[in-house]
Amino acid sequence: MQALGYYNGKFGFLDDMTLPITDRAVYYGDGVYEATPTRNHVIYAIDQHVDRMFSSASLLKIEPPFTRDWLKNELNLMMEQMDGGDNVLYWQLSRGTARRAHPFPENVKPNLMMMITPYRFPNLDEYVSAITLEDTRFLHCNIKTLNLIPSIMAMQQAKEQGCYEAVLHRNGRVTECSKSTVHILKDGCLITAPTDNLILPGIARSHLIEGCNANGIEVIERPYNLGELKNADEIFITSSTSFLRRCVRLDDMEAGGRDEARFQTLKNYVWNRFIAATEVEKDR
Amino acid sequence: MQALGYYNGKFGFLDDMTLPITDRAVYYGDGVYEATPTRNHVIYAIDQHVDRMFSSASLLKIEPPFTRDWLKNELNLMMEQMDGGDNVLYWQLSRGTARRAHPFPENVKPNLMMMITPYRFPNLDEYVSAITLEDTRFLHCNIKTLNLIPSIMAMQQAKEQGCYEAVLHRNGRVTECSKSTVHILKDGCLITAPTDNLILPGIARSHLIEGCNANGIEVIERPYNLGELKNADEIFITSSTSFLRRCVRLDDMEAGGRDEARFQTLKNYVWNRFIAATEVEKDR
Repeated sequence: MQALGYYNGKFGFLDDMTLPITDRAVYYGDGVYEATPTRNHVIYAIDQHVDRMFSSASLLKIEPPFTRDWLKNELNLMMEQMDGGDNVLYWQLSRGTARRAHPFPENVKPNLMMMITPYRFPNLDEYVSAITLEDTRFLHCNIKTLNLIPSIMAMQQAKEQGCYEAVLHRNGRVTECSKSTVHILKDGCLITAPTDNLILPGIARSHLIEGCNANGIEVIERPYNLGELKNADEIFITSSTSFLRRCVRLDDMEAGGRDEARFQTLKNYVWNRFIAATEVEKDR
Repeated sequence: MQALGYYNGKFGFLDDMTLPITDRAVYYGDGVYEATPTRNHVIYAIDQHVDRMFSSASLLKIEPPFTRDWLKNELNLMMEQMDGGDNVLYWQLSRGTARRAHPFPENVKPNLMMMITPYRFPNLDEYVSAITLEDTRFLHCNIKTLNLIPSIMAMQQAKEQGCYEAVLHRNGRVTECSKSTVHILKDGCLITAPTDNLILPGIARSHLIEGCNANGIEVIERPYNLGELKNADEIFITSSTSFLRRCVRLDDMEAGGRDEARFQTLKNYVWNRFIAATEVEKDR
């Protein structure tokens, strides 16, 4: 499977690309990232992702050595190198390259890395299952950082139990999943956790909220707990690359699956939004 | 300053060494590490560090593709390549190299990386100051992982305030520092937090406890709070590379510094222990 990599202006086949051992991403995970699907070589929601990367970087006091426009142009130039148009585009910005020492190194430039891999979009009519786990992550989950060990461990546990995701909770309060956001439908309303320091401000989340607004579905942003999750009419798991998945089993028990009509409405909204945004002229 | 790097059997000048972009350390921080000083090319407390690395790896379900003896031999072989004998030896083990996906990749071998840099041992008779900060890290602090962003941010804040370290606390309960362990002396006893999931089982901590036992100083392992820290007779900050530092200012207020005799006893114990363990025959 052809995949491309990029590092500070150089690019090549992903599996051949290297970076210095002394990039702070390597030994501290000291950086931020974004990932989004592309279709027809069009990078979906590029403005939102670039804005969020700048926001994540700012929260870690990493100053990107480029403008938003330069970055978008660089991402698009790399995208044009791919044979196929349907991909996942991943990029990360680390604080810089320096000998290992905790304080920020002086006079170093952040490093930009990209990975582009072909992608087959998921079938949103295949429903999924999840486990629930205690959320043991740090208290900076609003920043999209490279410090992902607890998410990896949670996802591995989900996979070993044959599940699509792990829904995390702090002492009963549902936060998000290992790599997705989670929301519930109850009595015709969407309930979704507020974007505090415990969850990432999901871009797919924003598209789901947009879909609710467009379809007269009330959106309530408030913390909710495991009991509400288990008794929800629907459980929705969203992420940039998986859009909207309907969760119908939780910890090996039936869950959600009781508001088919609103699920279909919202699924069609987020999928059609993606298709429309990534459409290109046939004779381009 | 000559420094060497190593990656899966290859080595060279540290600043020239590279690793694949697809090493999971790069984009997930998915690995564990150790660091220890060397003197006369002798790696201090190598058995303890190698054991802890195997323990950290095991907690993340990373299986080292070598035995403890093979690793010790490889570390020693690299150490022999250094011109000077006084260094910091750092090594890390990542889960492996693979295309980015949260679940553990199958059929990959963990990657071993080393960085060796010349080191000037600190003067333990220079006393230090610290700030206190809320501990916002994850709940796996017993594992020595590459997910270090909150520690970096805390250390940077300490540095900007002219301090040596940041003492972290969870809602008032003192845990540890950004890259060190913290202990207090009160009424002739050493009080140190228990090694639960909130702190790393420090190797310098174990040497300090050994020093207490050898000198009739009672050791009490229990959680303690910020009030006790501020009213301690002495505040000790320990780490493998900095041994034992006496902290005499906390948040810009005088603190500790009231049990000089026991400080001297313990400082001499840990320093002499290091010197004795790293002594070599003159005519070697």
